[in-house]
Amino acid sequence: MPSVELIAIGTELLLGQLVDTNTPYVAGKLAEAGVDVFATHTVGDNRERIAAAIRASLERADGVITTGGLGPTIDDITKEAVCDALGLECELHEPSLRAIEGVFAKSGRPMRENNRKQALLPRGAIALANSQGTAPGFVVEKDGRFVACMPGVPREMKPMLAGGLLPWLHKRFELSQHIRTRTLHTIGLAESEIDHRIADLFASLENPKIAVLAHQYRCDVKIMAKAASEEEAIALIAPVEHELLRRLDGHVYGVDDQTLPGAIHVLLRQTRNTIAVAESCTGGAVSAALTSVPGSSKSFVGGIVAYDNAVKTQLLGVTEALLASAGAVSEETATEMAIGVRRRLEATIGLAVTGIAGPEGGTPEKPIGLVWLALAESGGARAVRLNLAGDRHAIQDRATIAALGLLWRTLAAGNRLRVEPRNG
Amino acid sequence: MPSVELIAIGTELLLGQLVDTNTPYVAGKLAEAGVDVFATHTVGDNRERIAAAIRASLERADGVITTGGLGPTIDDITKEAVCDALGLECELHEPSLRAIEGVFAKSGRPMRENNRKQALLPRGAIALANSQGTAPGFVVEKDGRFVACMPGVPREMKPMLAGGLLPWLHKRFELSQHIRTRTLHTIGLAESEIDHRIADLFASLENPKIAVLAHQYRCDVKIMAKAASEEEAIALIAPVEHELLRRLDGHVYGVDDQTLPGAIHVLLRQTRNTIAVAESCTGGAVSAALTSVPGSSKSFVGGIVAYDNAVKTQLLGVTEALLASAGAVSEETATEMAIGVRRRLEATIGLAVTGIAGPEGGTPEKPIGLVWLALAESGGARAVRLNLAGDRHAIQDRATIAALGLLWRTLAAGNRLRVEPRNG
Repeated sequence: MPSVELIAIGTELLLGQLVDTNTPYVAGKLAEAGVDVFATHTVGDNRERIAAAIRASLERADGVITTGGLGPTIDDITKEAVCDALGLECELHEPSLRAIEGVFAKSGRPMRENNRKQALLPRGAIALANSQGTAPGFVVEKDGRFVACMPGVPREMKPMLAGGLLPWLHKRFELSQHIRTRTLHTIGLAESEIDHRIADLFASLENPKIAVLAHQYRCDVKIMAKAASEEEAIALIAPVEHELLRRLDGHVYGVDDQTLPGAIHVLLRQTRNTIAVAESCTGGAVSAALTSVPGSSKSFVGGIVAYDNAVKTQLLGVTEALLASAGAVSEETATEMAIGVRRRLEATIGLAVTGIAGPEGGTPEKPIGLVWLALAESGGARAVRLNLAGDRHAIQDRATIAALGLLWRTLAAGNRLRVEPRNG
Repeated sequence: MPSVELIAIGTELLLGQLVDTNTPYVAGKLAEAGVDVFATHTVGDNRERIAAAIRASLERADGVITTGGLGPTIDDITKEAVCDALGLECELHEPSLRAIEGVFAKSGRPMRENNRKQALLPRGAIALANSQGTAPGFVVEKDGRFVACMPGVPREMKPMLAGGLLPWLHKRFELSQHIRTRTLHTIGLAESEIDHRIADLFASLENPKIAVLAHQYRCDVKIMAKAASEEEAIALIAPVEHELLRRLDGHVYGVDDQTLPGAIHVLLRQTRNTIAVAESCTGGAVSAALTSVPGSSKSFVGGIVAYDNAVKTQLLGVTEALLASAGAVSEETATEMAIGVRRRLEATIGLAVTGIAGPEGGTPEKPIGLVWLALAESGGARAVRLNLAGDRHAIQDRATIAALGLLWRTLAAGNRLRVEPRNG
C-alpha cells in the first residue's frame, strides 16, 4: 500500500480566510483507492517553505500530492519549489503550451506572458491535463518517490484527480485494494458508553477497523474494511456489523446516508402513523427537522410552537390551573401538550417538548437545561426528563435531537425494528 | 511576532470523512491577534506520529496548537503524545477532575474511568477550562517553546480559544499588533449589486481593507484595519464604515455578532410589537430562528406549522373555498395565514410562509421554488412572491431568511432604523 502526504499551498489558507476542502476531498478519494494518507500539511506561498515541506514529506512517504500555487501570478511558485526540492530544472512543455493557447483562442481573451509560464514543468514530468482551466498539473518521479501537483481551484482539481492522477497511481502502484465503509448511526448512548461496550473490538480489530465519531447527542460507529475485491470487503464488514448491532441494540437508527428524521418518516409510513408536534423551548426546530425530509407531508400533519402560555392554553388545551400548579416546564404540562397537539391536529402521535433553554429563566428547582419530552399515542402518554448541558443553542439542539430520538425509539420498538446487515 | 504551527489530530480527517473547520478558524483568530501561523498539519490518531509532528513543528515555530484527541476513548492520545514529544509525565489535575465530576453529577449520567483519564495533564501544564464539555485543554511550556491542546469539537474549542488560549498568548508574547474587524451584515442585495456600489472603495483602500462575503440570501461586508493600537484601528475603520452604511442604506441589519433574528427582536421590543408565525414549506424554521435569540419570549408569541391543509383551515382560518380556488401556495392563502395567525395568537404582527420546496409538488404554473410570504399588521397585510433556486434544503433556507428579511425591513422602515457607527 503506497503512502502519500498532502500539501495544500496558499497563504490565504494560513490566514483562515478560506477553508481548504481540497485536502479532505483528495484524502477521501485516495482512501477509497487504497492509498494511505500519512499526514497533510498547509504551507504559505513561500518557495523555501514549500520545498522544505516536500522534502520532509518524502522522507516519510512514497509520494507527495500538492494542491494550489499553479496559477499565473507571481505568488504561484509551487513548480519552482518542487524543482528546488528534487534538484530538477523547469522546461517548457510544448503540448501544455498549445493547450493553454487553445483555451485563450477559444475565449477570445489575450494570452499574457504569465500564462505562458504555466506551461513550464519540471524536466521529466508527466503533464496532467486541465479540462477546466489553463494550469496543467503534473507528476514527476525521482529516486523512487513522486511529487504530483494539481491546481487549487476545486473545479479544476477534481477532474484532474479522477482523470489523470488516480489512473496514474493505479498503474504505477498496481493498486488493487478496495475499501468499503459502513456507518451505523446511534442515538441515546454517550460516546463513553459506546466505548465501554465495544472497547475490546476497537482494540482487537485491524481489518475492518472501527471508529466512533461523536456528534450532538448522537454517535456514529464506522466500520472500514480493506480487501482485494469489493465482495471480500463487504464480507469482512458483515460479521462486525452484526456484532455491533447486537451490542448497540435499540440505539442504531440508520446506516450510511440515513438521517434520524428520514428514519422516523420511514417508520411513520410503515406503521401508518401520523405526527403532530408541540414545542416550547425548541421553538420550531423539531418540526423543521421532521419537514426537512422530502415527502414528509405524507406523515407530518403540523406543529404548534407554544411559546406564550396563552398558546399552550388556547391551542393545546393545557389548563391555566395546571400551568399555575405544575408550571410550564413540568412532566404534567409536557404530557398535556402532547395529548393536546395529537387531538387538535388529528394525528396518531403527539410529540411535545418544553424546557428552559436559558440564559434566563432558571431556578434552583428548575435549572437551565431542564427539558421535559412527552409522547402521546392512542394508548396513553409518557414523559421523559432531561438535564442538558451547554448554552441556549446547545440545549435547543440537544433537546431537538432527544425529542426525535424519543419518537424514533417509540416507533422502532412498536415495529420491532432490526437494521439488517447489508448483503451487497 | 510569535510564530506557531497548528496540528489537527484525527484519523477520520486523513480519511477525508470530516472537513477540518477548526484549523481555519484558529488560524483566522491568530492572524487577528498578530500571531504568525507558519504551517498547519493533520495527523492520525497515532502516538508516535503526533509526537514526531509536534517535535518537527517546534523546530520551526515558537509554539504548537493542536485540536482533537482529548476525548475519553482509547484513540484519544494527544496528551500522551505531547508528553512523549516534550519528555514530560502526565499527572492528575485535581481541579479538572472536579470539573468533570461536576458535569456528570449535573447530567445524572454515570462517570466512567475513561472520563477520569480526561483530567490527566502534562506536569506543569496550565489547564484551559472547557465550558461546553468534559475535556479540559491545556498549555505547557518547555525550553522557551509551548504546546497548547484543545478539543476537536468546535463548540468546545471556540470558547476555550477565546477565553483561555488567546488571553494566555496575549500575555505571554505581549502581543501589540492590533487587528480590528467590523462586519456589516446586509440583506436584500445581491453580491454583484454590493460590488457595483462599492467597487471603487474595494480597489482603492489598503488599510482598512474591505471584503464581501456572500451567504445564502445575505451578504457580509468586512472592514479590516491594522494598527499599533486598538484606538488607531478603530479610528481607521470609522470613516469607511460610515461611507459603507451610506451606500448600503436600508440593507444593513446589523454588525459583527448581531444576527438577523437578534436585530428583529431589538426592533420588536423598540416598537412594542409581538410576532406570531404561520409556516408551511419552511416547516418551523422561521419560528426556530426567531426563538434562537435569548429573551425572545418577550416578543415571540408562538407559531403554527400548517403542513396539512386541515391545519390551515382549523387553526388559521383559511377557508376551504380559498384553498380550492387559489391553492395552498398563493398570495391569497399566504395573506390569510398571516392574518389568521396574528389574530389567533393575539400578536401585533403575523408573518406567513407558504411555498413548494420540492422535490415533488411542482407544476408548470407553480414550480418548485415558488414561495409566497405575507405580513399582517393592524393596518392590513401585504404579500411578496419569491422564485427560489436550489434543492429542498436550499429553498427552505432561503425562504426562511427571506421571511425574516421581510419582517426586519417592515420593522426597520417603521422605526427609521439607522445603524450608528461604533465609538469604541
